[in-house]
Amino acid sequence: MASSLISRQFALSLQKNLHLSAPGCRYVSKAAPKTQLEFDYDGPSMKTSVPGPRSEELRKQLGHIQNVGAINFFCNYEESRGNYLVDVDGNRMLDIYTQISSIPIGYNHPDLLKLLSDPSNLSTLVNRPALGILPPENFPEKLTESLVSVAPSGMTRVQTMACGSCSNENAYKAMFIWYRNKERGHNTPSEEDLSSCIINQSPGCPELSILSFMGGFHGRTMGCLATTHSKAIHKLDVPSFDWPIAPFPSLQYPLEEFTRENAQEEARCLEEVEDLIVKWRQKGKPVAGVVIEPIQAEGGDNHASSDFFRGLRDIARKHGCAFHVDEVQTGGGTTGKMWAHEHWGMEDPADIVSFSKKLLTGGFYHKDEFQADEPYRIFNTWMGDPSKNLVLSEVLNVIRRENLLEEVNRSGKALMTGLVELQAQYPGMLSRARGVGTFCAIDICDDGTRNRILITARDKGILLGGCGDRSIRFRPALVFKEYHVHLFLNIFNDVLAQLK
Amino acid sequence: MASSLISRQFALSLQKNLHLSAPGCRYVSKAAPKTQLEFDYDGPSMKTSVPGPRSEELRKQLGHIQNVGAINFFCNYEESRGNYLVDVDGNRMLDIYTQISSIPIGYNHPDLLKLLSDPSNLSTLVNRPALGILPPENFPEKLTESLVSVAPSGMTRVQTMACGSCSNENAYKAMFIWYRNKERGHNTPSEEDLSSCIINQSPGCPELSILSFMGGFHGRTMGCLATTHSKAIHKLDVPSFDWPIAPFPSLQYPLEEFTRENAQEEARCLEEVEDLIVKWRQKGKPVAGVVIEPIQAEGGDNHASSDFFRGLRDIARKHGCAFHVDEVQTGGGTTGKMWAHEHWGMEDPADIVSFSKKLLTGGFYHKDEFQADEPYRIFNTWMGDPSKNLVLSEVLNVIRRENLLEEVNRSGKALMTGLVELQAQYPGMLSRARGVGTFCAIDICDDGTRNRILITARDKGILLGGCGDRSIRFRPALVFKEYHVHLFLNIFNDVLAQLK
Repeated sequence: MASSLISRQFALSLQKNLHLSAPGCRYVSKAAPKTQLEFDYDGPSMKTSVPGPRSEELRKQLGHIQNVGAINFFCNYEESRGNYLVDVDGNRMLDIYTQISSIPIGYNHPDLLKLLSDPSNLSTLVNRPALGILPPENFPEKLTESLVSVAPSGMTRVQTMACGSCSNENAYKAMFIWYRNKERGHNTPSEEDLSSCIINQSPGCPELSILSFMGGFHGRTMGCLATTHSKAIHKLDVPSFDWPIAPFPSLQYPLEEFTRENAQEEARCLEEVEDLIVKWRQKGKPVAGVVIEPIQAEGGDNHASSDFFRGLRDIARKHGCAFHVDEVQTGGGTTGKMWAHEHWGMEDPADIVSFSKKLLTGGFYHKDEFQADEPYRIFNTWMGDPSKNLVLSEVLNVIRRENLLEEVNRSGKALMTGLVELQAQYPGMLSRARGVGTFCAIDICDDGTRNRILITARDKGILLGGCGDRSIRFRPALVFKEYHVHLFLNIFNDVLAQLK
Repeated sequence: MASSLISRQFALSLQKNLHLSAPGCRYVSKAAPKTQLEFDYDGPSMKTSVPGPRSEELRKQLGHIQNVGAINFFCNYEESRGNYLVDVDGNRMLDIYTQISSIPIGYNHPDLLKLLSDPSNLSTLVNRPALGILPPENFPEKLTESLVSVAPSGMTRVQTMACGSCSNENAYKAMFIWYRNKERGHNTPSEEDLSSCIINQSPGCPELSILSFMGGFHGRTMGCLATTHSKAIHKLDVPSFDWPIAPFPSLQYPLEEFTRENAQEEARCLEEVEDLIVKWRQKGKPVAGVVIEPIQAEGGDNHASSDFFRGLRDIARKHGCAFHVDEVQTGGGTTGKMWAHEHWGMEDPADIVSFSKKLLTGGFYHKDEFQADEPYRIFNTWMGDPSKNLVLSEVLNVIRRENLLEEVNRSGKALMTGLVELQAQYPGMLSRARGVGTFCAIDICDDGTRNRILITARDKGILLGGCGDRSIRFRPALVFKEYHVHLFLNIFNDVLAQLK
């Protein structure tokens, strides 16, 4: 009773705030374009609690083959549409987590169904080439249409890879190779280089390092893992490298109210970065590259200012270290620009930019000088998958055709406004609403409450994910419109009221 | 003139040897089944030298985006069929390298075209899930039909991954986790474990190691790379771990003529393995696992006996190390059994078996005790790709339906007989013909001649690959029949005669 009253009050306040006129608790925003409705449902629809009985049955089956501890539920992808994920028990949820932020334009987008039904694309699906030695005829064209068409400023070169971890591993290798080539004055490697590397010894396998940040996440293979510092469960029991780890700025929100304090905090972190670079050089393990996410995602959606990133790049340059921006989670349009680092407004922002997830293929862009001097240095059997480039090419067409980056900015504003409102309404429960585009997050008072919110929201048809110690991260697809924002806010308000 | 004479003599000797009656240089073996011809060409057809002008043009285009130094030529996958790869200049080559050994049943197999044209599979191609949290309904069924149906002896559990390197990286992590859990007596990790691992320090990130072999290849990400010791170009300039590296037996061929010498050599290597395990334990970097290929592939197709592998497994067991068999290149049927290690005839051959390439998806099988105790320890966003499991499932159906393992054994025998014959005919040029099934290799007198053979063969319509310092490796698809063997041998003989 109390909760439904609050919900109605909240809906009214939202309408006032957003200047929307439709009355009632669940309304269709006037801004919602028709094109969306063609392949989207009109709201969540729940038949069982989640996971339902069919999910439980399948979980038992799969449990004979794999660890199923992380499985939320089993999905009916055939019936899923747009922003809605349907499970095997017939529950339909508004998906604001999108497979750990990896679905760019929703489920079963009609243009993708059409593309993959086209018989002329069949060969790309059936014959996976070893791209590094025998690429298909249309490979340069598809690369140009897809990844090259959205290349970050200053970069014309891109190497595809199979996943995010492989992308970062190979980006690190490219930085090590670049660094050692500089050290050798671009001369041929010595006999000692060649013979020592075979047995893992220096100088062939040099004592170089990558500087990373506390709270960062860059993947789970062993090179990446040495730069990942978000959760113990990722790293426990795996041998690592003695590489420098700098503090990431711990900012106070709302950012505009704490400019001075935040600037001080960022200056402190930059100073520490420079100290570490000097210290590790003295240790005989020079920093070949600095890696950072534009927004620390897995680590709790931690932001820093453009000034911080500019300062960081300058420090990297000053000390001859490469600057690698990891856009695996932030890239692909969800911040309202194709790359989150474009918000920095820098002309020459980075040396290397890695990606995966919403780009459907892994890989990394790099400046010319980071191309390995010889073939077979950055190499593996598949080097990506042309069938993913094919789909990405069409995804980018859809983003342009449907002006999805504009939509993201519009939805993002509505989402942030709503989160700030809710935060004012539940001050003991919510804090630190933050975000760029729809790449938003909010903190919950404690981990237990966070998890109760996630489960209750799911049972009401809203799929969300956590990050950091006690944050909820919002990672909708690019087709998440204002209409969906309001739908979400209404239900989220119900959840908060219920758990208050 | 001389070369064509030799060629004819050789063809005659082959016919005598193989008891085949069709006369002339290029004949159809009576053993060639009709089913093959439905989607195969009847021989190579060359229009230009390779790479041709269209390939050169595309290479220039792609050169603006990537390092193209390793590219052989560009392919027309639409026109490729069965054992024949067609390039963009209309050249059709008999493919005995199959995209670095990763095409299981040839190009455009009709059953795969049918499968991927089926509208009911469209959703699997369009919606890539985060398999570890939100698998599709048919995931347990497809896993059971595909990977579980060919699980190595003693293993019921399998984890999919995106590529070979990720498979081995995660297999290593599984071994480290298993080893540390044993050390902790399966108690909860300590506070110190949890806090130290975040900053790459022990005890949370322990000083454990993986023992590998000289000449081995296990991938190119940093964990894998620390166990790869085949070529300097793979490893140069990349930091590594101080892990033990044992000698791989250097056997004399033909194996049956050197049993005593080879047994001694294998005993020497096993002794060294045991010494290294003891030494690294004393160093404070205990060996958590031993990794080995059943046949060292990239390193030069180096074989060892079943006794060696049995001895190695016993040593690993004795010292509490896991035993990981890397079947990324050897797995999938090309040795005449699904897994090369099945040739050892052991009941309990391994703790972990990793795969990729011809299995179309990466991953690893493991014994129950190697399943991580908690979720999210062996984890990433995609954890493989169900569209690859779908295709693999049909590939395995084709293998069973068309008895392809039997075919491989038949073709393999013909190939080995032919190679041994050629070796007798060109003793100054060829040596050490060796192989299991069609997984064969032969040594060439020197690297330069090897490369001339590869290029000349390509211009005559035979696509081959090198391995090691001066070997040629044969890696045909499973649909490579006796007919193709004879076709290859005839042309190969021409090449050798020409370069003699």
